[in-house]
Amino acid sequence: MRRGIPEVIFAERKQLKDLKKIILAATSRSESVLVSRISKDYYNKIISFSRGNRLKIKVGRNTTSILFYKKLGSSGGKVGILTAGTSDIGVAEEARLMCEAMGCECICSYDVGIAGLHRVFPIIKKMIHEEVDAIIVVAGMEGALASIVSSLVDTPVIGVPSSVGYGYGEKGIAALASMLQSCTLGLAVVNIDNGIGAGAFAANVANRIVRKKIRL
Amino acid sequence: MRRGIPEVIFAERKQLKDLKKIILAATSRSESVLVSRISKDYYNKIISFSRGNRLKIKVGRNTTSILFYKKLGSSGGKVGILTAGTSDIGVAEEARLMCEAMGCECICSYDVGIAGLHRVFPIIKKMIHEEVDAIIVVAGMEGALASIVSSLVDTPVIGVPSSVGYGYGEKGIAALASMLQSCTLGLAVVNIDNGIGAGAFAANVANRIVRKKIRL
Amino acid sequence: MRRGIPEVIFAERKQLKDLKKIILAATSRSESVLVSRISKDYYNKIISFSRGNRLKIKVGRNTTSILFYKKLGSSGGKVGILTAGTSDIGVAEEARLMCEAMGCECICSYDVGIAGLHRVFPIIKKMIHEEVDAIIVVAGMEGALASIVSSLVDTPVIGVPSSVGYGYGEKGIAALASMLQSCTLGLAVVNIDNGIGAGAFAANVANRIVRKKIRL
Amino acid sequence: MRRGIPEVIFAERKQLKDLKKIILAATSRSESVLVSRISKDYYNKIISFSRGNRLKIKVGRNTTSILFYKKLGSSGGKVGILTAGTSDIGVAEEARLMCEAMGCECICSYDVGIAGLHRVFPIIKKMIHEEVDAIIVVAGMEGALASIVSSLVDTPVIGVPSSVGYGYGEKGIAALASMLQSCTLGLAVVNIDNGIGAGAFAANVANRIVRKKIRL
Amino acid sequence: MRRGIPEVIFAERKQLKDLKKIILAATSRSESVLVSRISKDYYNKIISFSRGNRLKIKVGRNTTSILFYKKLGSSGGKVGILTAGTSDIGVAEEARLMCEAMGCECICSYDVGIAGLHRVFPIIKKMIHEEVDAIIVVAGMEGALASIVSSLVDTPVIGVPSSVGYGYGEKGIAALASMLQSCTLGLAVVNIDNGIGAGAFAANVANRIVRKKIRL
Amino acid sequence: MRRGIPEVIFAERKQLKDLKKIILAATSRSESVLVSRISKDYYNKIISFSRGNRLKIKVGRNTTSILFYKKLGSSGGKVGILTAGTSDIGVAEEARLMCEAMGCECICSYDVGIAGLHRVFPIIKKMIHEEVDAIIVVAGMEGALASIVSSLVDTPVIGVPSSVGYGYGEKGIAALASMLQSCTLGLAVVNIDNGIGAGAFAANVANRIVRKKIRL
Amino acid sequence: MRRGIPEVIFAERKQLKDLKKIILAATSRSESVLVSRISKDYYNKIISFSRGNRLKIKVGRNTTSILFYKKLGSSGGKVGILTAGTSDIGVAEEARLMCEAMGCECICSYDVGIAGLHRVFPIIKKMIHEEVDAIIVVAGMEGALASIVSSLVDTPVIGVPSSVGYGYGEKGIAALASMLQSCTLGLAVVNIDNGIGAGAFAANVANRIVRKKIRL
Amino acid sequence: MRRGIPEVIFAERKQLKDLKKIILAATSRSESVLVSRISKDYYNKIISFSRGNRLKIKVGRNTTSILFYKKLGSSGGKVGILTAGTSDIGVAEEARLMCEAMGCECICSYDVGIAGLHRVFPIIKKMIHEEVDAIIVVAGMEGALASIVSSLVDTPVIGVPSSVGYGYGEKGIAALASMLQSCTLGLAVVNIDNGIGAGAFAANVANRIVRKKIRL
Repeated sequence: MRRGIPEVIFAERKQLKDLKKIILAATSRSESVLVSRISKDYYNKIISFSRGNRLKIKVGRNTTSILFYKKLGSSGGKVGILTAGTSDIGVAEEARLMCEAMGCECICSYDVGIAGLHRVFPIIKKMIHEEVDAIIVVAGMEGALASIVSSLVDTPVIGVPSSVGYGYGEKGIAALASMLQSCTLGLAVVNIDNGIGAGAFAANVANRIVRKKIRL
Repeated sequence: MRRGIPEVIFAERKQLKDLKKIILAATSRSESVLVSRISKDYYNKIISFSRGNRLKIKVGRNTTSILFYKKLGSSGGKVGILTAGTSDIGVAEEARLMCEAMGCECICSYDVGIAGLHRVFPIIKKMIHEEVDAIIVVAGMEGALASIVSSLVDTPVIGVPSSVGYGYGEKGIAALASMLQSCTLGLAVVNIDNGIGAGAFAANVANRIVRKKIRL
Repeated sequence: MRRGIPEVIFAERKQLKDLKKIILAATSRSESVLVSRISKDYYNKIISFSRGNRLKIKVGRNTTSILFYKKLGSSGGKVGILTAGTSDIGVAEEARLMCEAMGCECICSYDVGIAGLHRVFPIIKKMIHEEVDAIIVVAGMEGALASIVSSLVDTPVIGVPSSVGYGYGEKGIAALASMLQSCTLGLAVVNIDNGIGAGAFAANVANRIVRKKIRL
Repeated sequence: MRRGIPEVIFAERKQLKDLKKIILAATSRSESVLVSRISKDYYNKIISFSRGNRLKIKVGRNTTSILFYKKLGSSGGKVGILTAGTSDIGVAEEARLMCEAMGCECICSYDVGIAGLHRVFPIIKKMIHEEVDAIIVVAGMEGALASIVSSLVDTPVIGVPSSVGYGYGEKGIAALASMLQSCTLGLAVVNIDNGIGAGAFAANVANRIVRKKIRL
Repeated sequence: MRRGIPEVIFAERKQLKDLKKIILAATSRSESVLVSRISKDYYNKIISFSRGNRLKIKVGRNTTSILFYKKLGSSGGKVGILTAGTSDIGVAEEARLMCEAMGCECICSYDVGIAGLHRVFPIIKKMIHEEVDAIIVVAGMEGALASIVSSLVDTPVIGVPSSVGYGYGEKGIAALASMLQSCTLGLAVVNIDNGIGAGAFAANVANRIVRKKIRL
Repeated sequence: MRRGIPEVIFAERKQLKDLKKIILAATSRSESVLVSRISKDYYNKIISFSRGNRLKIKVGRNTTSILFYKKLGSSGGKVGILTAGTSDIGVAEEARLMCEAMGCECICSYDVGIAGLHRVFPIIKKMIHEEVDAIIVVAGMEGALASIVSSLVDTPVIGVPSSVGYGYGEKGIAALASMLQSCTLGLAVVNIDNGIGAGAFAANVANRIVRKKIRL
Repeated sequence: MRRGIPEVIFAERKQLKDLKKIILAATSRSESVLVSRISKDYYNKIISFSRGNRLKIKVGRNTTSILFYKKLGSSGGKVGILTAGTSDIGVAEEARLMCEAMGCECICSYDVGIAGLHRVFPIIKKMIHEEVDAIIVVAGMEGALASIVSSLVDTPVIGVPSSVGYGYGEKGIAALASMLQSCTLGLAVVNIDNGIGAGAFAANVANRIVRKKIRL
Repeated sequence: MRRGIPEVIFAERKQLKDLKKIILAATSRSESVLVSRISKDYYNKIISFSRGNRLKIKVGRNTTSILFYKKLGSSGGKVGILTAGTSDIGVAEEARLMCEAMGCECICSYDVGIAGLHRVFPIIKKMIHEEVDAIIVVAGMEGALASIVSSLVDTPVIGVPSSVGYGYGEKGIAALASMLQSCTLGLAVVNIDNGIGAGAFAANVANRIVRKKIRL
């Protein structure tokens, strides 16, 4: 009953040889495959391997996930993606790859955290103007950016706590707690660092809107 | 920048006299007001008070939250609401009140938990057929229903862990953990017992779809 | 070596009769006495008792703490006190009583939380204009207000997580974690609901400033 | 008073030289010895060593545990073993080695997780048809598979949370909580990754059945 | 696919009137019904009500759970039930009621905790002699009894941590942790205070043995 | 609205090449830059690089943080810095660098922990005599030094739990808890190991005092 | 193999009638019986009952535990007991009752907490002078008193965290963590509020000393 | 005021060169020095260095701690040391080194855990016969051995949870909880893996006994 969501493969703990086999198998059976958390040592080798096998790929900034695709359609959906800091970019980029795999256009703005609150407003304005269908906010530390964005828009906001932080509440726990406790309405959350899940959820929202429009 | 979301008032710890004043003030300034977690002792008194003041209200099953409204429009949005057990109904009804306050139609099906898995499939089928824009799943204990539903549909699913449970993982903690860990894509979560937040998020998704359609 | 800080008595679990004795003894030996967390049943009785014994008192909003004093001097120190919600007022008022017992003037502004972010800016402006020596921010739920204020000023900010909240991160835990993780510099924290400690700390900062000035 | 359970040796932190000595000593005094969590570096060396010493061994997939045995009898007991994902296979294989050491036949089916719920039913049917005496379910992430299986059979089900997962509830904690909270009856749990304990428990159940039958 | 397990109704939070209705409905549709955690105020009223309606019941010591049954068969299964202290008896009795509802004979021995270790041995001997098919051990505090019993027998042992205890590890958490960490093989665990789950699991084990025997 | 606080850059996870670029950019736009948690491998290379580029730097003991500055003014503020053990020195030195970057003079005394309580008194006396404006106490293990110091002075005390410790309460959790629970008034806390935040807060307090004095 | 330790009965959750029976039985079979945590409602009734039955009793301050004894010998052992605050007295008194039941003399000094550090030294001096065999320190909040005492003496110190405290680390958790993390040598700990256990342990130490001496 | 306890130096994170200097300084000023947790790489080098400098040392099994001493006297105290498993030996040996540094004779018996309960009794008998003054029990996993020993003797028992274990309750947490919850009287606890603290405490107890005897 599910469609449009790419196959997701966790590369962690897999040997290079096995990974290559799995990628070949998956890309031959699926329209798109998102291979996530490839070890740094294998990343460039997998990219060469993709070229050697003429597999089309998309990559992201600060992340070793790779999207393999046959053809990337455009669903007409639009998703905004924000991060609080530069350390959150890798998770945001996984969300972006997932959204693009599902045909959505992404408007990304990274490093707009609470320490520079004034930077938030113009970005939010732009996203409202562009009529994004959902906004993903990746934030570690105290994770306040998700609440702030959610207090400013009536677009659905998906919070992704990132495992940035230290001491009490480290590994994203403070950000998760703060997003779940948010006193704004209109914010839902995925697990820590789960950019892929956030991307799939946001694209589901965005594409659904488009699909219904089309039927009109 | 936000519209359509009713004002929410937490009645907890408020005196009856104060609560009445607050309700009068809020209902005169807002289109709709959701008064949540009224103490059992005050619930019937607030209902009488509403009648005495000719305030229109909607109430829910197993919950002491009351929606005050001037006029409930229809946004055209549709939200499905499921619960795993009968103890989850109060939270689900708060979600329903919020959705209806925001103009959405709700299709509710309560007590379809994992112990009677076979009951899940026809309900999901119906919700797909009815083209709901989002599905809210309220579940306590091990919270597995949210994952199961999310594995079956490509509609956005909002999980609400409920504070049902005992021993290790009690107070909704097991359900929250299990929903955040879900290996299905397309599931986002709000805090434990946060039916109101889930309702607002789902209605945001649903109404956005409608709003965009209309503009076509 | 310590001066100016009133004696603090926790009334919790003490019998009315004992409490009265303790108050008489303390007020006769100390310049000022802050009796905290008096049970609701005793509160009015202690106030009558104070009048009967011609003890000067100050009380607060939403709190059963009472300040007993001989003479409240003015240290010249100024402290700003903010709360995110109305439920945080009791804790803020304990901070105010403590600051006033230590001779500071307080500028209070309650219920300026993140859901109404726009209300924060004019208040902060006013506090900067008034040259407060320290700002206390009481916030429950996700506790983001403390980070936001701290990002806007170079006055020392003392965060007080309040035990408002529910579900994951309840009892002030989310607010505490989020304040400790704050990526802004210039924010220090006291324990959950510790308005008295925050007040004493802020007054220490403010009075020190004054004391040094005077010596010039 | 205990019989039939092989000696278990944890190889972790043991030097290769010591490990070899321990294996020789244990295999000479016990019918069967399960050496668990051998370091990857030693695994092949231990296998060569076994051959060199003519010790009979059984190994598993994705695990470095090795079963040393003199003669594997057949108790007539039957145990079903399921995993939710491929990452759970190592733990499941340790359970299998333990069951086989205790004379049970194992029917294994790996990677039948909740994301592919439809794959569960035929496997459960087969296990019921084969009259397995107990079913071991290894699952990480949200661990829902154990509850689902337990809701479908009246065979005793032993849940093994595996340390697969990330973010909130990582290291098997979410799976453990969800299995303990299961609202189905007939599910008992062992510690995270404790495939060996699950195997011994299941074999105890299965062999007991057989032993009683035989006495008839 | 499931048989023999009675319907379980949690009476908690249910009104007396509703509870009576639910009992009438359940007892007319099911062979046996276990109503659990009846409030103390209602307990005697439900017993009178049962007599008034000629419903057959079984009750337990130190527990307000009631078993309603039409006819209690004998499956031939035997279950041993031990508790460490007198405070654990209520939970043990819920397990007993469940076992008896499923046709098993129970051999119970309460208050044999670790402080009187010498009392454990004769009881275990007796249970081995009686050939119980499973042993349920209910223990709070440090929960060591479950490990000790499991180290002495090759019968499957089901540990039930009880919520007895205080300070660090209170509410059964220490007992749960200690049972999961047990270094003996042959121990599986259910959630804290889950006597009903332990009873159902043990009876499943015992009856399975019998069922297979019969078929011979 | 903020002044005097240096730019802070977390070097963690950054490549040497990138780090050099970032330092050049930051030092050209900011008066002072604190680069924190440089990897040990890069530390000496960054120092050579600084010399090669004629960047003025200050370094600390037991820490790889480096302060880059154009000109270090003197604000007239004074901050006392104490550590309980030698393992806490790195965190204390980060606080010192931050204070000095903000123009404060620091009086440091390291390794005066509770095991040698008698060493505390003369140091505190000296700090009072020197009229420090704030005292930073870095302590791991049980963190009692912060409470002890706070009980002895009416200077504001900022506690920094350090991640020294092991077993229960490890990673600074015991020290954090003990500082938050302190029964002395006048102690506020920053997150575990957050020497930089403590330094900025203390300097804020100290400089504010000076600024106000100057205006007289 | 154990001698001299009185029988301990937890009165919690026991009915008055049952409690009386239990006391009669226990006092007739044991030399001394410590009945702990009697409900406040029953306390005076149990005292009357004791008089009526000519049972000799000892009671404590701020505690509802009662020691029943036939004859209190003197073992010659001496135990020092300290509390940090007045709220800790109840727990300390339970320790004292236990010590006295075991024949030890107790030297008690309550309310000498860290906020009045100077009060600690003369008390410790006195205890050293009196040659106490062990010192029990009951402390809640940050629990630092136990570490401080342990840093001053070479007598064995037994820390009892008390469940005094609030917010983060409440219910004695901060005190427990801080005592376990103590960097002083010579401190061992019992569970939160476990005055009885601390008393028994201290008396064991003290009496052992005496017993050995006697044999000389 | 303290005597007889050796100086303790934590070697962790110290460079070899620095460590050597520290050892020379410490051994010249103290009668005995216990250097703990030396890195494996340095261990043999430190031993050679000791020989080169004619420093007398004692070492332990499975531990890299080294005791440096001038002359080991005999205090006449006796301490029993038990471990549950072989993995606990390193921690036990640190306790032994500390006891011996303080002049006590140690009676050690390792690997007598609960899985071989029958081995416990003869060892305990021997220790009672030898009149040990205190018994140290090191145990990981479920930590039950400490409770069992404490239930059998009236000698003071010091429990040391070891960081052996996995899954829920790992890193010694289950053992710590179970020891704190022990329902036996006469058991006190030190932090996880704190063999040194346990040794110092036990020797304090033992030597005190002797010291008092001598004075007779």
